[in-house]
Amino acid sequence: MSEKELQLTDPSNDATAILSAIKTKNATAVEVLTAFMKRAAIAHQLLCCLTQVFFEEGLARAKELDEYYEKTGDLIGPLHGLPISVKDHLGLKGKRATGGFSGDLDRLISTEHAPVNQILWNAGCVFYCKTTLPQSIMHLETHSFWGQTLNPHNTGLTSGGSSGGCGALVAFGGSPLSIGTDIGGSLRSPASCCGIYTLKPTTKRLPSNSLRGCSSVPGNEAIIATCGPLARSSRDIVLFFQVILKVQPWLQNMSLVPLPWKPEGVRWSGSGGKIRLGVMWDDGNVLPQPPVRRALNAMVAALRKTGNFDIMDYKPKYHQELTVMAQSLYFTDGGKWASVRARAAATGEQLCDLTEWVITLPGVKDRTSHQLWELLLERDALRAKYYLHWNTQNIDVLLCPAQYGAAQPLQTTKYWGYTSVFNCVDFPAAVFPTGLKANASLDPKDSDSREPWSEADAYSAAIYDPLLSNNAPLSLQLVSKRHADEVVMQALQEIETVLPLRD
Amino acid sequence: MSEKELQLTDPSNDATAILSAIKTKNATAVEVLTAFMKRAAIAHQLLCCLTQVFFEEGLARAKELDEYYEKTGDLIGPLHGLPISVKDHLGLKGKRATGGFSGDLDRLISTEHAPVNQILWNAGCVFYCKTTLPQSIMHLETHSFWGQTLNPHNTGLTSGGSSGGCGALVAFGGSPLSIGTDIGGSLRSPASCCGIYTLKPTTKRLPSNSLRGCSSVPGNEAIIATCGPLARSSRDIVLFFQVILKVQPWLQNMSLVPLPWKPEGVRWSGSGGKIRLGVMWDDGNVLPQPPVRRALNAMVAALRKTGNFDIMDYKPKYHQELTVMAQSLYFTDGGKWASVRARAAATGEQLCDLTEWVITLPGVKDRTSHQLWELLLERDALRAKYYLHWNTQNIDVLLCPAQYGAAQPLQTTKYWGYTSVFNCVDFPAAVFPTGLKANASLDPKDSDSREPWSEADAYSAAIYDPLLSNNAPLSLQLVSKRHADEVVMQALQEIETVLPLRD
Repeated sequence: MSEKELQLTDPSNDATAILSAIKTKNATAVEVLTAFMKRAAIAHQLLCCLTQVFFEEGLARAKELDEYYEKTGDLIGPLHGLPISVKDHLGLKGKRATGGFSGDLDRLISTEHAPVNQILWNAGCVFYCKTTLPQSIMHLETHSFWGQTLNPHNTGLTSGGSSGGCGALVAFGGSPLSIGTDIGGSLRSPASCCGIYTLKPTTKRLPSNSLRGCSSVPGNEAIIATCGPLARSSRDIVLFFQVILKVQPWLQNMSLVPLPWKPEGVRWSGSGGKIRLGVMWDDGNVLPQPPVRRALNAMVAALRKTGNFDIMDYKPKYHQELTVMAQSLYFTDGGKWASVRARAAATGEQLCDLTEWVITLPGVKDRTSHQLWELLLERDALRAKYYLHWNTQNIDVLLCPAQYGAAQPLQTTKYWGYTSVFNCVDFPAAVFPTGLKANASLDPKDSDSREPWSEADAYSAAIYDPLLSNNAPLSLQLVSKRHADEVVMQALQEIETVLPLRD
Repeated sequence: MSEKELQLTDPSNDATAILSAIKTKNATAVEVLTAFMKRAAIAHQLLCCLTQVFFEEGLARAKELDEYYEKTGDLIGPLHGLPISVKDHLGLKGKRATGGFSGDLDRLISTEHAPVNQILWNAGCVFYCKTTLPQSIMHLETHSFWGQTLNPHNTGLTSGGSSGGCGALVAFGGSPLSIGTDIGGSLRSPASCCGIYTLKPTTKRLPSNSLRGCSSVPGNEAIIATCGPLARSSRDIVLFFQVILKVQPWLQNMSLVPLPWKPEGVRWSGSGGKIRLGVMWDDGNVLPQPPVRRALNAMVAALRKTGNFDIMDYKPKYHQELTVMAQSLYFTDGGKWASVRARAAATGEQLCDLTEWVITLPGVKDRTSHQLWELLLERDALRAKYYLHWNTQNIDVLLCPAQYGAAQPLQTTKYWGYTSVFNCVDFPAAVFPTGLKANASLDPKDSDSREPWSEADAYSAAIYDPLLSNNAPLSLQLVSKRHADEVVMQALQEIETVLPLRD
């Protein structure tokens, strides 16, 4: 890779900067794509993060964009020339898609772009590769018949999942922006593990259809997935939402809520217009591993120092119940349907350990319609209680761990509660890197004498090994209530004035 | 009743006028309530439309309101002194609620007002009675152990249902505004049969919780009910939505969509800013009975004459499929659960014919979760096709029949398609009276030689009897797409400049 290619693809160079370089003719779309193609190919060799490449088609598109710009002086749209990578199950016209099972290979070919991809395409982006996801798309790691996607900061660790291919690729520098999905943490886990940015928005704000046939829970609406961006900066996330919502996708897709992106005008409720920031140090069910606690402490200390925030503790409530509820809502068919157990069996593919784990959790049962109705009533009652509690805390946004630890050793990531709770209540949640890294000497193991709060807590405490986690990025999560996606992003942009943190 | 009481309660005197009379001290809240109490008592004796009265409590409230106004010179809120009646299954604090089964009597007592009722109460209204609903709340008539609610225009006919008590009471003059619910036509059927106004809004705009234990399908979210007003004028409907949405109910109830009521600013897409009005003469599945066809013809002719509308035919598509889909979505437990068949059996109560009919329709099956997922995928595919088709028709609003006929002879109302389709796609739909009435000499029976389009069509044609329907009000329906509730109401207010129609 040339010096310019290294500079163009460097993770510090975000999509906004790349688009500006194209616009000001400091780089052509072909130059940009060529650089990312090279870096993506290297990323895949080291990290196993791609499922398909179609570089020639990408180059042809980039060439067309350059010619158009040269000829007309106009950009095609706000994403003119931006290379975007796409999680495997999101449709790209003429490309295969999978749900992480080998039996899907070459069985599922998209006849058109998924709606979100079509909007990005119309805005001028370039597609050039698809990224890995785990078997069943239901791990917070990325393990499937393609192998395991590794963490670019430490290849002994997971990239997170299920959008782990997106996360690894963006963090390595192989893509400036990647489109993934989240139903229990699948955008936030890779963002957290790889040290990049995401926003899991409120559902029904983005058209999120994946290719039919990929999902492990097709038609289940007890808990709903949403797509979202994995990005290098918070401003790129805002750009993504502005581009998508500018076209009013609800005019085409009646399931969406007609809320345009409102980039400004949040009124903070703290004294003198400060942001009221709640801090949830833990969820009351699993104590975060030492590196995460250090990051949250450092973040809060840095924010306190600015004097620009009203900071208070947020008392966690119902997190254990919501975590179990989410587990119950994923597989109301008991996980037995063709898309998981039988789907693997059909081709003799073994179930991965994390697939087996997730479909045999205590809440997973094969329910009749009537039993499902009862579960949904329980869910709604729990949501209502959670919302009431949230409202009593009187905060604008919630700062909390993104996961129970930094990136974990391969095939060990289990407890989903730090992320799945916000799917269960459908609150928007961003993840961002603090700039800190796990550090064996700063993050020693806790004493064995601590009484575990739960089985998951005991597991997390037992499995934590300071030496293994070394150098994993330390990320945090920022949350607000349903439909307050813009509130999260505006608060994040205030908060990140103290970033990056340094030890 | 005194002259003033007759005038106050006359159906031509809407809630807005009554509120104005209280504000200008032309009537006290006690006077207003007293008048409505009397007329409601008469209505019930003639029409069987009430389940409970609590007049003393209403009077105490009205007296308090009068005293407050006298003392402070201020009104409590925008509904100061307005008597409001409430469908039986919507909670009022300390009052019993039922789902139309005798076994519910005195079993279900509300510990607080339903959220929608609490908002109305805070705005200053007076509660004084609850209204009838049919067994299981799932007829488009109102037949239960309380008896049958009759049509105030012709007691041989149904009031419609399931909010038939609301409809009969408002049309008779016993209530200026009543709160009902709709999952397949339950606001629009009584509005149509009784000749009054309603808007079934998009779901999740209003807090619509009924008392738990009343519903026949508790927890089912495959197709969702919404509450809404039965009113004497379109401006009362707008007032209702403004009052409810002004308090931002989504701040308390996270399931709601945060869309304030936007009373103005719709841009019509017709030539010179005219409303593009599609007319659906029939749904392609059941030809409306002659009186309805005459009303629609007369309405369109009157609108054409104004020159203020771009009027075009709307081609019906997917109505038969959506009608069957709605039937399938109501009882995904096969209608067998305790709340219907077993719920009646528990007290030895017989199932009404219309209850038996609705839970044995072809689409009604007891489904597993996985079978339900498949049904929801079919629903979503059908919704998407319908929306695509709607968009190709390029209209602002759709004018169409509200039901296949005017109010029907008791216990005969079956085909729900004209209303349930708009539940299935969740489009807002208003019903309004044209001013015309069914008329035996103007609305003769069609010739027997017409080939029926469907079984339901043959039934409707066979059962139509011009003499029986005589004097039933002729109403129509106005529809726009999801979340365009304000568009429907603004268009209705333009359209009703030609009302009432006269033969």
